[in-house]
Amino acid sequence: MKLKLLFSCLITAGIAVPALAQEPVDAAMVQKIREEGLSHSKVMETAFYLTDVSGPRLANSPGLKRAQNWAVNQLKTWGMANAKLEAWGKFGKGWEVQKNYAAITVPYYHAIIAIPKAWTPGTNGVIKGEVMLLKADSAAELEQYKGKLAGKIVIFDTKAPTERTWKADAARYTDEELAEMAKAAPAAPRRNAADPNAAQMATFRKLRAFRATLSQFLVDEKAGLVLSQARGTDGTVFTTNGASYADTAKAVAPELETSSEDYQRILRLLKGGQPVQLEADIKTQFITDDLQGYDVVAEIPGTDKKLKDQVVMIGGHLDSWHAATGATDNAAGSAVMLEAMRILKAINFKPKRTIRIALWSSEEQGLFGSRGYVANHFGDPKTMELKPEQAKLSAYYNLDNGTGKIRGVYLQGDSAAAPIFKAWLEPFKDLGATTLTISNTGGTDHLSFDAVGIPGFQFIQDAIDYGTRTHHSNQDTYDRLVEDDLKQAATIVASFVYHTSQRAEMIPRKALPKPQPAR
Amino acid sequence: MKLKLLFSCLITAGIAVPALAQEPVDAAMVQKIREEGLSHSKVMETAFYLTDVSGPRLANSPGLKRAQNWAVNQLKTWGMANAKLEAWGKFGKGWEVQKNYAAITVPYYHAIIAIPKAWTPGTNGVIKGEVMLLKADSAAELEQYKGKLAGKIVIFDTKAPTERTWKADAARYTDEELAEMAKAAPAAPRRNAADPNAAQMATFRKLRAFRATLSQFLVDEKAGLVLSQARGTDGTVFTTNGASYADTAKAVAPELETSSEDYQRILRLLKGGQPVQLEADIKTQFITDDLQGYDVVAEIPGTDKKLKDQVVMIGGHLDSWHAATGATDNAAGSAVMLEAMRILKAINFKPKRTIRIALWSSEEQGLFGSRGYVANHFGDPKTMELKPEQAKLSAYYNLDNGTGKIRGVYLQGDSAAAPIFKAWLEPFKDLGATTLTISNTGGTDHLSFDAVGIPGFQFIQDAIDYGTRTHHSNQDTYDRLVEDDLKQAATIVASFVYHTSQRAEMIPRKALPKPQPAR
Repeated sequence: MKLKLLFSCLITAGIAVPALAQEPVDAAMVQKIREEGLSHSKVMETAFYLTDVSGPRLANSPGLKRAQNWAVNQLKTWGMANAKLEAWGKFGKGWEVQKNYAAITVPYYHAIIAIPKAWTPGTNGVIKGEVMLLKADSAAELEQYKGKLAGKIVIFDTKAPTERTWKADAARYTDEELAEMAKAAPAAPRRNAADPNAAQMATFRKLRAFRATLSQFLVDEKAGLVLSQARGTDGTVFTTNGASYADTAKAVAPELETSSEDYQRILRLLKGGQPVQLEADIKTQFITDDLQGYDVVAEIPGTDKKLKDQVVMIGGHLDSWHAATGATDNAAGSAVMLEAMRILKAINFKPKRTIRIALWSSEEQGLFGSRGYVANHFGDPKTMELKPEQAKLSAYYNLDNGTGKIRGVYLQGDSAAAPIFKAWLEPFKDLGATTLTISNTGGTDHLSFDAVGIPGFQFIQDAIDYGTRTHHSNQDTYDRLVEDDLKQAATIVASFVYHTSQRAEMIPRKALPKPQPAR
Repeated sequence: MKLKLLFSCLITAGIAVPALAQEPVDAAMVQKIREEGLSHSKVMETAFYLTDVSGPRLANSPGLKRAQNWAVNQLKTWGMANAKLEAWGKFGKGWEVQKNYAAITVPYYHAIIAIPKAWTPGTNGVIKGEVMLLKADSAAELEQYKGKLAGKIVIFDTKAPTERTWKADAARYTDEELAEMAKAAPAAPRRNAADPNAAQMATFRKLRAFRATLSQFLVDEKAGLVLSQARGTDGTVFTTNGASYADTAKAVAPELETSSEDYQRILRLLKGGQPVQLEADIKTQFITDDLQGYDVVAEIPGTDKKLKDQVVMIGGHLDSWHAATGATDNAAGSAVMLEAMRILKAINFKPKRTIRIALWSSEEQGLFGSRGYVANHFGDPKTMELKPEQAKLSAYYNLDNGTGKIRGVYLQGDSAAAPIFKAWLEPFKDLGATTLTISNTGGTDHLSFDAVGIPGFQFIQDAIDYGTRTHHSNQDTYDRLVEDDLKQAATIVASFVYHTSQRAEMIPRKALPKPQPAR
């Protein structure tokens, strides 16, 4: 999941549920799905292959390729039709870490916890030397370091000390929080009083410009290794990218995102007049043989003469960040969606409409896999020129908020879907899934569908320790998966897909978005 | 601090406070001490030198030597008398880590978080190879591995998965908890219904015997590297020793205490039929040139003709575990005690009784530094043969429960001290120090004094994240120190020391312990 955890607008207002005929629920089929999903689950096995066996799944990395190939083969093994990798467009370079070692050697030996920033180069063998504290907030202040950084290990002063956790890392939604979500009004336009004002934007732009200058300065001066402070504590390191994945990207210096404790220790020593020496050996590999991005796609074909050209889609992104195995972001969602497909196949369900799964790539860089797929199949969100398939896709369901069980659905402003989903959630009250909120949630792939007028939904999920520990961190590993929660989610998704595929009508749509004015 | 965090008996009963004349409190001096301790503190600077600058302070390691030498010099600089290292007896070998690198290389590259167990040897250069899963619960089951382990990397099956934290790491005592402590009855004899029964002891002995057999087997078979699972999550690794520090200790195999996440990943892969290869380069150094253990000692000499031969002692252990810089265990207590001395000197206090600080070593291996000192100066707790100095030591105050501020005092069963300490705590109500509990607390150096009939006290401290994150872990760094709490503690200790040194009488004593029967 990209950027924000939740973008939800918690204003008290009711969801209007029109007094229509009760939406039908197939109780016998729900029971079958529950039996398969809760008592014969394969979701943890699937998660094992996506995480432990495949490894980190950064966009276009070998780890992502392994997971994609495994998923295609597994979908075939389960009997899905048209299982394949489908190119969505040009992404850029793959990248992976092949050696990662760094340690303080003076004033004493201490191996540090640090992760190369994504798409940064390595150190070209072992680098050793004093750490230099670089103090500069402007291009002018950088000048004093000209000619002094070649081969050096560089650290910056920072005003961000290590924080201590006085709150629990992991939590579930309380009944009160869910009730608040259910009362939310449709999302207000995003730009409002809380958005950055002109002065803040100017500061931000200045900072960004200086960062670009600094980055170029470090390259020009041939700095040997740059240390930057990672978010996170207690050995948890949140990671980011340190350079563009584009094949035309500018060179950058090697950069290690360093645990706050190790970073602050080095900084305190240097500021206290104590020399620090470091040794490091970082090797990273760029993969440039195929710059295309791919999504995993597979289907259970529809069987109803009139409806089989219509489609229900489910998905989640399969790519992750590089410091761990992206268990909660988003092997969890991928495994749940794969499991939902498996459940429907295992109970030998022959849907009226076609059911399609897609596991996206390059979500972390900007929802690229789903955007590319939507552009290729459904239309252009800028011009709102739509393709025929757009009219045939009933709904897209996404999962990408971690390992937490499903507590309900973000209606994404589609109030006409409320009575339908209300009925479909009814059989899962005992599993804690009860809440509909008219709110939007952002940051992941349902937005790509919503942008071209297709009903696209993300489920409400318990956060567990997604925001505090796992989201983009070196701790996003299989250990953080909650088995019962993933089983519950797969069961509910399978039931939603079942009902969507059999429903007399497609899921009702919001008004079409307007074309975006040319800039 | 060794072993248990707290051994306190929370039974509801009152501390009898006899209706004696009010214990005098010197309000003007308390105000001076508060001013110096709260507004002119050097405690964080002291902590910086003990942690960041000195490094890990395992018993007899170079890091401990650095900290000891710094402390002696600093005490001299502050004008203390008789500042020195004092040998307490034979300890054993020093040890430190000089290289620590380990990474999974197959099925993909991933550097792991792992710490060499204390006093284990290194790998003698880079070791690479498949990880072997060794399954054996008995000497007989080990036989199958005979001739197969030479140079191999070995892992064991374990039933301890990674745990997730649903509770906050850090907390302070609540008023209710403190009230419960205040109501505690004198400690019951330690062996009671909750202690292990004969069957549990038999199981434990069997397990210990197998571990010894296994350890010898791994050495005999020349295993290249052993992985064991560390306690802790999220990148936090709690460390232990893997071999004896004795100069006569048996050889052991190199052993890495591995973060639960990395350990479980390797284990899941192997159990899932996926080969795992590792590369590691571990170098450790034994220091055998001086097997003696030393304590740091310094004094502010008494000035009263009749009382200057009497002594008030304060202390805490300076040694730590090796994976971090032992900030909360126990640079915190050491820095507070050093700061208390500094405060008293800074306000130019000339005590009636002599004030002495001692910073112990080898506490983590069994309170050896304080036990040795007590044996050399005060008496033998086994025979209860006492030396003359025993009668001259009024009280010993210890600090070793992390960075948390002082909330009161464990009276260690010395009810006659209650009215005295009650009066001395009175000026610190506003700083949260109010509670007296008749309870014992164990695990640290005041026990060595208590064992020979000298009033020995440990302060009640807020736990913060001592038990959950820092105590013996790789995360016990300067970052975890709470500045305001350390200032508060140093101020209160200085005031207690002041009043103890000036009091008309020494602190009242409990009945002398009985000699321990020969075994």
